[in-house]
Amino acid sequence: MNFSVPAQVLELASRVKEFVRDIVVPYETDERWTSHGPTDDLRRELNDLARKAGVFAPHVSKEYGGQGLSHLGQAAVFTAAGYSMLGPVALHCAAPDEGNMHLLDVVARPDQRERYLKPLATGAGRSCFCMTEPSPGAGSDPSQLLTTARLDGNTWVIDGEKWLITGAEGAAFAIIMAKVVGGEADGRATMFLADMSDDAIKIERTLDTIDSSFTGGHAVVRFDQLRVPSDAILGEIGEGYKYAQIRLAPARLTHCMRWLGSAIRAQEIATEFARRRTAFGKVLGEHEGVSFMLADNAMDIHTSQLTIWHTAWLLDKGEKASAESSMAKVICSEAIARVADRSLQILGGLGTTRDTIVERFYRDVRAFRIYDGPSEVHRWAIGRRLVRGHTK
Amino acid sequence: MNFSVPAQVLELASRVKEFVRDIVVPYETDERWTSHGPTDDLRRELNDLARKAGVFAPHVSKEYGGQGLSHLGQAAVFTAAGYSMLGPVALHCAAPDEGNMHLLDVVARPDQRERYLKPLATGAGRSCFCMTEPSPGAGSDPSQLLTTARLDGNTWVIDGEKWLITGAEGAAFAIIMAKVVGGEADGRATMFLADMSDDAIKIERTLDTIDSSFTGGHAVVRFDQLRVPSDAILGEIGEGYKYAQIRLAPARLTHCMRWLGSAIRAQEIATEFARRRTAFGKVLGEHEGVSFMLADNAMDIHTSQLTIWHTAWLLDKGEKASAESSMAKVICSEAIARVADRSLQILGGLGTTRDTIVERFYRDVRAFRIYDGPSEVHRWAIGRRLVRGHTK
Amino acid sequence: MNFSVPAQVLELASRVKEFVRDIVVPYETDERWTSHGPTDDLRRELNDLARKAGVFAPHVSKEYGGQGLSHLGQAAVFTAAGYSMLGPVALHCAAPDEGNMHLLDVVARPDQRERYLKPLATGAGRSCFCMTEPSPGAGSDPSQLLTTARLDGNTWVIDGEKWLITGAEGAAFAIIMAKVVGGEADGRATMFLADMSDDAIKIERTLDTIDSSFTGGHAVVRFDQLRVPSDAILGEIGEGYKYAQIRLAPARLTHCMRWLGSAIRAQEIATEFARRRTAFGKVLGEHEGVSFMLADNAMDIHTSQLTIWHTAWLLDKGEKASAESSMAKVICSEAIARVADRSLQILGGLGTTRDTIVERFYRDVRAFRIYDGPSEVHRWAIGRRLVRGHTK
Amino acid sequence: MNFSVPAQVLELASRVKEFVRDIVVPYETDERWTSHGPTDDLRRELNDLARKAGVFAPHVSKEYGGQGLSHLGQAAVFTAAGYSMLGPVALHCAAPDEGNMHLLDVVARPDQRERYLKPLATGAGRSCFCMTEPSPGAGSDPSQLLTTARLDGNTWVIDGEKWLITGAEGAAFAIIMAKVVGGEADGRATMFLADMSDDAIKIERTLDTIDSSFTGGHAVVRFDQLRVPSDAILGEIGEGYKYAQIRLAPARLTHCMRWLGSAIRAQEIATEFARRRTAFGKVLGEHEGVSFMLADNAMDIHTSQLTIWHTAWLLDKGEKASAESSMAKVICSEAIARVADRSLQILGGLGTTRDTIVERFYRDVRAFRIYDGPSEVHRWAIGRRLVRGHTK
Repeated sequence: MNFSVPAQVLELASRVKEFVRDIVVPYETDERWTSHGPTDDLRRELNDLARKAGVFAPHVSKEYGGQGLSHLGQAAVFTAAGYSMLGPVALHCAAPDEGNMHLLDVVARPDQRERYLKPLATGAGRSCFCMTEPSPGAGSDPSQLLTTARLDGNTWVIDGEKWLITGAEGAAFAIIMAKVVGGEADGRATMFLADMSDDAIKIERTLDTIDSSFTGGHAVVRFDQLRVPSDAILGEIGEGYKYAQIRLAPARLTHCMRWLGSAIRAQEIATEFARRRTAFGKVLGEHEGVSFMLADNAMDIHTSQLTIWHTAWLLDKGEKASAESSMAKVICSEAIARVADRSLQILGGLGTTRDTIVERFYRDVRAFRIYDGPSEVHRWAIGRRLVRGHTK
Repeated sequence: MNFSVPAQVLELASRVKEFVRDIVVPYETDERWTSHGPTDDLRRELNDLARKAGVFAPHVSKEYGGQGLSHLGQAAVFTAAGYSMLGPVALHCAAPDEGNMHLLDVVARPDQRERYLKPLATGAGRSCFCMTEPSPGAGSDPSQLLTTARLDGNTWVIDGEKWLITGAEGAAFAIIMAKVVGGEADGRATMFLADMSDDAIKIERTLDTIDSSFTGGHAVVRFDQLRVPSDAILGEIGEGYKYAQIRLAPARLTHCMRWLGSAIRAQEIATEFARRRTAFGKVLGEHEGVSFMLADNAMDIHTSQLTIWHTAWLLDKGEKASAESSMAKVICSEAIARVADRSLQILGGLGTTRDTIVERFYRDVRAFRIYDGPSEVHRWAIGRRLVRGHTK
Repeated sequence: MNFSVPAQVLELASRVKEFVRDIVVPYETDERWTSHGPTDDLRRELNDLARKAGVFAPHVSKEYGGQGLSHLGQAAVFTAAGYSMLGPVALHCAAPDEGNMHLLDVVARPDQRERYLKPLATGAGRSCFCMTEPSPGAGSDPSQLLTTARLDGNTWVIDGEKWLITGAEGAAFAIIMAKVVGGEADGRATMFLADMSDDAIKIERTLDTIDSSFTGGHAVVRFDQLRVPSDAILGEIGEGYKYAQIRLAPARLTHCMRWLGSAIRAQEIATEFARRRTAFGKVLGEHEGVSFMLADNAMDIHTSQLTIWHTAWLLDKGEKASAESSMAKVICSEAIARVADRSLQILGGLGTTRDTIVERFYRDVRAFRIYDGPSEVHRWAIGRRLVRGHTK
Repeated sequence: MNFSVPAQVLELASRVKEFVRDIVVPYETDERWTSHGPTDDLRRELNDLARKAGVFAPHVSKEYGGQGLSHLGQAAVFTAAGYSMLGPVALHCAAPDEGNMHLLDVVARPDQRERYLKPLATGAGRSCFCMTEPSPGAGSDPSQLLTTARLDGNTWVIDGEKWLITGAEGAAFAIIMAKVVGGEADGRATMFLADMSDDAIKIERTLDTIDSSFTGGHAVVRFDQLRVPSDAILGEIGEGYKYAQIRLAPARLTHCMRWLGSAIRAQEIATEFARRRTAFGKVLGEHEGVSFMLADNAMDIHTSQLTIWHTAWLLDKGEKASAESSMAKVICSEAIARVADRSLQILGGLGTTRDTIVERFYRDVRAFRIYDGPSEVHRWAIGRRLVRGHTK
């Protein structure tokens, strides 16, 4: 057993942290970081800075100019990037693009790679992942999928409504989950690729949400008889759920990595404040009521870090790590939310203002206990495995 | 012992709830409810509607057109008002005006009542309470007060910076806490009344904050050689801390009342959703993972309600109830925050959006664990009383 | 609304507290307080002392020499008695006798009152309540009842095994829950009265349990063709579940009352220790890490007290208060367990020893989250009411 | 980074688990496992069985017949041993002997090794560690040491009272922490070695405690003019605190390892029960209220495991790991206590009885949040490091 991070990864993570701290953090007060996330203009500016600093998209395969980081490598680098919520935007390792790249890398045909993955990987354009639907459609339970795909000659006709589609506004293309109607695959979920420029795709509105760190925000998207050619299927027909799983386990973990970076930042801000601000005759940090919160933050950061590393190691070994990535999602999302909460509390009145990044982090990270499976769905899955005696 | 609410109070509370539900709630999507709180224009419109419905400012003494509600009466009515975060704005029982009215009612001279309390009580204008200062000034520890008042002939000259001053933007007058410099009261905190129209009072900026339900938002206010006459002192010179305590105990409790109303609303929204939204073969509410959260909400609402009633009863008996109002503040602010958190979690993706009021409630109520004394300061005070053997 | 406790009740509670503190507490080191509870010998000695002090069985109706305390009266007096875990034993208001008296008082025929209630109420003998069965029988789910009652001529023949039967060892009689087999009431739960001296009732063993405050401990009891006359039915045939509910709601609440008394005691012991024991340059109580725990204890005691009062008031009004007594059970059992845990933690090494009563209280109160419905069953019931829209 | 456990360690851990499950577990109902811990007779019988199985004392250096396990090796093996609370007793890797062996191994002179370490390492006799004193002596704050050592010619005269001295009853020798009075080292803590057979050492009583898994229980020990030769000092004069630290960091971690084994056992018992016991129409484990508890157990076990491994790795690298071992102590002791609590709750009525080992585990592990530094002392230390900016 060995917890050493390879020198090469450490060096890259260290450069990323420096880049984020010196170059990205000052952008946190940029007006282009709106309540619907950073604008594409800001995103591109940050991407250019990352390219210049040699830290752009290091997770991408070397084929597309990246460094093909392992999951453990990502653990180090994405956490460094997450030090600012704009860091993953700058490095182009934010959701949903990062997860989409992974999915396409595993599943896409060569021509799809060329057309969709290549421009995505190089940052030429963005993408979105259209799975979630409003009630009574597919939310926590993907089997409630209502969006349909019907074969009309050589063309698939897709109809339905999606929502909470992150980054839809401004995306070049979409991966759409739909239920096949008719034919041999009748009733089975399937993934399709489509250009967002298609007139049959309508962004009905951008939702006002508690979080604001994803480029393009979260949109309601409608498909009105969207027609795509028969080869627009990603992978095999009827394998949508399988691919969603392929995407999800690592996607969950990269969320953990990025948010861990923000937790470390919040803890730094709270600690620095606790060293300086006085009350009742001494600095806050000399009050146990405050220092115990800092200690609890440190422990939550510690266990989150270890959990991420362990699951990343399993993924690097080629395991599915379903149970472990579920546990990592719950452990990290809840631990990091506590760090955000305590950090805000330590800052007191200042914590309630946008004068530090902690307020925004607190709001953003609230959604993390919900997306990619709410804690309840993961607890249910973890518990069911135990009760039914599955090893994994 | 008797937990019955008098019929007259029940009737008023019932009318208030109806008014809020039917008239106020639709305003929750009004664009004049900004991220810095409702505009004064919206506030006045809501005040007029409340007057028309006969529910305006029922806590105000009959002298000024109110009903002189007892603390227990307020418990019922303010909770009904809090069903919408705009309800207390409409009824003119929101912070800081409601607390300022109480303070002026107890402390102000007849001429000050006429000049300040009367227009405030009737809703002609708003007020602000200038106590909190940025680090290293008076925050949780009021003894760190840095704003000074120096007597220059017959005029007090006030200098200093305040922040997180709720409702300063648009307020007619301010109650200012400053430390006397020189003279017999040297070093002692004193309250002053001043018109906000004075050029020496500068609103430097309105803070971007996590909450957004207070009219005028929270501002940074600077006094640059603000000159007020010698009779601008509220009450006695040097008694600032004592008056702050007079204001605080009931002010804390009315916060609890109003937020309890919002918690009841969130629970209703979450329950309704849990009855309708399906996942994994049944409605959410039939999953114990969800129904246990609803049960915990019910219990947190129950204990909050009982705690408020008990402290209100003590205040009505004329007790200071310092220990009990501290406990009520901690118990309610934490219980209600948990209700907000669970309700949002039950709503899942919907909960992260502004499509229900729960998202805004979740954010707003976060600040409640900080203002009027963060939980840590109250725990410290409660614990100290126990250790040092004070009965109260 | 009014939280005053009537002077007469206050006076009695005060006498009870004094009796418990001065007379009962010294018995806490008596060797007759075994790991299976106080012996009957000790119980009788304590009963005599209580009689002498004029505080014996004040909840019992005047007919049997008691004072016919209301539920609110019990709230004050049982909490005072609970100051020592031997207090309720001394006053003869401990489980299961106290609940059995209530049940018999509501349901028993005159001849049953004379034969069973009278000697029970006057402390001549004890009783037990035989409902719980080992897996796969009736535990949390009473509908899994396996013990049967079969009519053979004029005689009921009862067969089955019960366990966790509190006080069975030494009891004069039992109330037995059994499922009728055959006849019109086939399959319906029914309560029977039987003398424990019957040879067909075998106490197989007394269980070693985490708690030790109930006289007689908890036993495994077997009925081997126990024959009782047809008039041994308590109340009506087939109404067993209804009577169980009649017994349960108040029985749960009296548990809350008694344990609250122990929580107050633990808090006193912890506070006194925190005032005296030093570490790192000051007394423990001046460390926020300790004083915050005392403050949390105070708040948990406060909400438990209020919850008990409220439910008692409802019961006194004649309401069933099913929802409220469920909430009170969960709120109090969990809050009081936290008080026990924090008090033990404050005492440190001393807390792990039997040199204070806190260690025993900590263990005993652990079972309170399980008996009379585990927290999970109550949360399930509370949540179901909310989801299904029942008001009560 | 690599989380693989070496095959050799895995193999040993697997043999230990098998030994504990098949040979040791049946002893859990042996009457020689008293409320003051296993008797020495039982301990020796178990030791012999472990020797026979080839798993005795694998942590001991090869010089004394052990396998000189690294900290990571211990993590695997001690956790396997902890599957039964008697496992560490059988393998002779329980506290305080295991920690004393480590201390002696690092600090003792060759003649002291021969006289004290050798018989201890081979299981010929046991030892105790006399540091803790009753109030107002050394508890959480070792600097309050009251036991004195005064040089009288060539002899040290030791006076004082210790308590909570684990294993004193039946121990062959003691390591005594005392404060030197007079001379150059005046006032400095120093460790002494003494035979427990000395008449000047009196075991005043064995404490009744909440836990019961340590051989010999916990005693009050008095030194009345205990005279030991000048070479009875362990290591250097005045270095007592330093040695206590050398002992503590690994000793804390081995506690975590052993208790983790018991947590795994409790989770197995609860899971098995949840698969079998029915309520309300299905097995408990199909109720989310239960399966979520199993899931939380799994996550607490997971983070405990990872935290132990990480700190063990640091210790193996030769680092002091003070911060990490403090964090591991708090994280594991609190997580494992939650596992015990949930497991007991899942078992319901059964959980409150000694019919499963969970009841005993629940009680024993309560003390773990107190010994080797209560959570509060560790949080204080962790927080202080952060506030004062120490890296370690």
